[in-house]
Amino acid sequence: MKATLIYGAGDVRVEHVPDPKLLEPTDAVVRVLRSCICGSDLWPYGSKATQDHGDRIGHEFLGVVEDIGTEVTGLKPGDVVVAPFVWADNTCDFCREGLQTSCRHGGQWGSTDVDGGQGEAVRVPQASGTLVKLPVGEDSALLPSLLSLSDVFPTGHHCAVTAGVTPRTTVTVIGDGAVGLSAVLAAKRLGAEQIILMGRHTDRTDLGRAFGATDVVAERGEEGVEKVRELTGGDGTHTVLECVGLKPAIETAFGVVRDGGTVSRVGAPQYPDVPADFGVFFRNITLTGGVAPARAYIEELLPDVLDGRIEPGKVFDRTVGLDDVPGGYRAMADRDALKVLIRP
Amino acid sequence: MKATLIYGAGDVRVEHVPDPKLLEPTDAVVRVLRSCICGSDLWPYGSKATQDHGDRIGHEFLGVVEDIGTEVTGLKPGDVVVAPFVWADNTCDFCREGLQTSCRHGGQWGSTDVDGGQGEAVRVPQASGTLVKLPVGEDSALLPSLLSLSDVFPTGHHCAVTAGVTPRTTVTVIGDGAVGLSAVLAAKRLGAEQIILMGRHTDRTDLGRAFGATDVVAERGEEGVEKVRELTGGDGTHTVLECVGLKPAIETAFGVVRDGGTVSRVGAPQYPDVPADFGVFFRNITLTGGVAPARAYIEELLPDVLDGRIEPGKVFDRTVGLDDVPGGYRAMADRDALKVLIRP
Repeated sequence: MKATLIYGAGDVRVEHVPDPKLLEPTDAVVRVLRSCICGSDLWPYGSKATQDHGDRIGHEFLGVVEDIGTEVTGLKPGDVVVAPFVWADNTCDFCREGLQTSCRHGGQWGSTDVDGGQGEAVRVPQASGTLVKLPVGEDSALLPSLLSLSDVFPTGHHCAVTAGVTPRTTVTVIGDGAVGLSAVLAAKRLGAEQIILMGRHTDRTDLGRAFGATDVVAERGEEGVEKVRELTGGDGTHTVLECVGLKPAIETAFGVVRDGGTVSRVGAPQYPDVPADFGVFFRNITLTGGVAPARAYIEELLPDVLDGRIEPGKVFDRTVGLDDVPGGYRAMADRDALKVLIRP
Repeated sequence: MKATLIYGAGDVRVEHVPDPKLLEPTDAVVRVLRSCICGSDLWPYGSKATQDHGDRIGHEFLGVVEDIGTEVTGLKPGDVVVAPFVWADNTCDFCREGLQTSCRHGGQWGSTDVDGGQGEAVRVPQASGTLVKLPVGEDSALLPSLLSLSDVFPTGHHCAVTAGVTPRTTVTVIGDGAVGLSAVLAAKRLGAEQIILMGRHTDRTDLGRAFGATDVVAERGEEGVEKVRELTGGDGTHTVLECVGLKPAIETAFGVVRDGGTVSRVGAPQYPDVPADFGVFFRNITLTGGVAPARAYIEELLPDVLDGRIEPGKVFDRTVGLDDVPGGYRAMADRDALKVLIRP
């Protein structure tokens, strides 16, 4: 089959690799219907040291079960399924607590001997725990929104949930990338009435408004902080959803959060530490969030997608075939595309 | 009257100052029955630049109302009262949310024109909101425990509450100072069954055991982290109460917290930032806590003190008169005393 490999910064290739097959009785093999490129894929795409062998890449996919191991339950060949971006047994103590990203028997797509999501098929470890069956056909118009349940929408949702967004909290979302826009949609879904989106790409912030943002702040840094404070009577917002991962973004987050409020971050941090001095301490600011246990949220979010109440798949603004994946990376890195859907 | 002033590192003096009197109609004047020295007073005592005038110091006191302004309600001369370590109107939005430390009309003892607590009397701004009436006489044996409601015990309690301590969470407390021991007592009161106290002063950790610690870890740094992990099946604890404020302590906190767990800090931070790299992110660690809104907790904690169910005042292991306050500072700085009670 064909799959995507990354050889270094700017060097993504689609090559022939061995077809996946069952290795463990708990495995399934899934033929990929839809995959996509994640903002977090852009970190290695931007900085990975060049190497002579490619690493599998991609961690979001939706597909059809082709084969199952002898210990797999609840799934059969032909089922349409979505995979969260970390595989997990969904039975250990961490999984039962809703932290499947720390599963005692889980792991990451594209790690040693595990396929990446940006390919024609994937061997899925811990298939019974990992995969969620979708009641749709292979040609459903809902596939983009259902694929978003793999990572980007649950990531925005995790950000909003851990920040404590409710109908009574004001919200700032930092970042108008696909995760930021998903966080806007998640905050709106949780009932937030004031959602300030910090972003400066009008086409993206327009989608943010459609998703529920009530205000858009294009300014950054101190000026952006000032603007959010103006919009909130000087206080900042109860919750801040940091969806970028860069130091200036997390610093802005601490600037716009209200005393006693919460900063949640879901942008993979490209910094070693965060401000936590006496000022932050005196203001009782909480910092939470982290990698989203997407698996924990899929069943909860699925009905809203199936009913069309939310359309998180709107973050996909370009579709490529597998051979065009390198161009998809370029488009996202150049901010020419918001989020690229892959149709293998 | 006499009051304590700090002129610089190691230079605390007791001097004559003007008697406090009502300045605002919302003020009261309180004659101090008991005051004390806080671990946080040791930061300026250790590092304050020398100056030619003294600054008032002390922020924990309990006393008798001597005079009230025309707008003070709910208090009368003769009432025995305790003051939280930040004064507040207790009516603004922050106060109603239980964050009196961010009160819109509040402030700190010892700031410009406001008395410190380590003196014979104090002018109390926003007296109706700040002071809590105590149903005891001036000679009650409960005074030390009631005084602890001013700061040290609510601070330990705030740490435990914001960390999310419940009967189902395991707990590590970092620091065997008065705040750490108070955090042990608070965690026990909230039902925690495993409370690991990290501290190496046996006389203090013995009191920690009496307060409810189930394990004591004397090792520090990597060795201490290892030990806590051993005690918890390798996982660390759900909650970590950081009661020191130094960088190695907060680093240890991130080392001993379980994936998905919470670090709460109430030790005034002597560092500008905290570790927040991809490892912390992937583990979904929350950092919370801050300066404790003691006022928010006094009514809740008071009955347990009055009934003798808890004795937080046991952290006081030395009593001095007002003239001996400089010696009290020395004793605490030398770790000769755990926490010094002042009887003006």
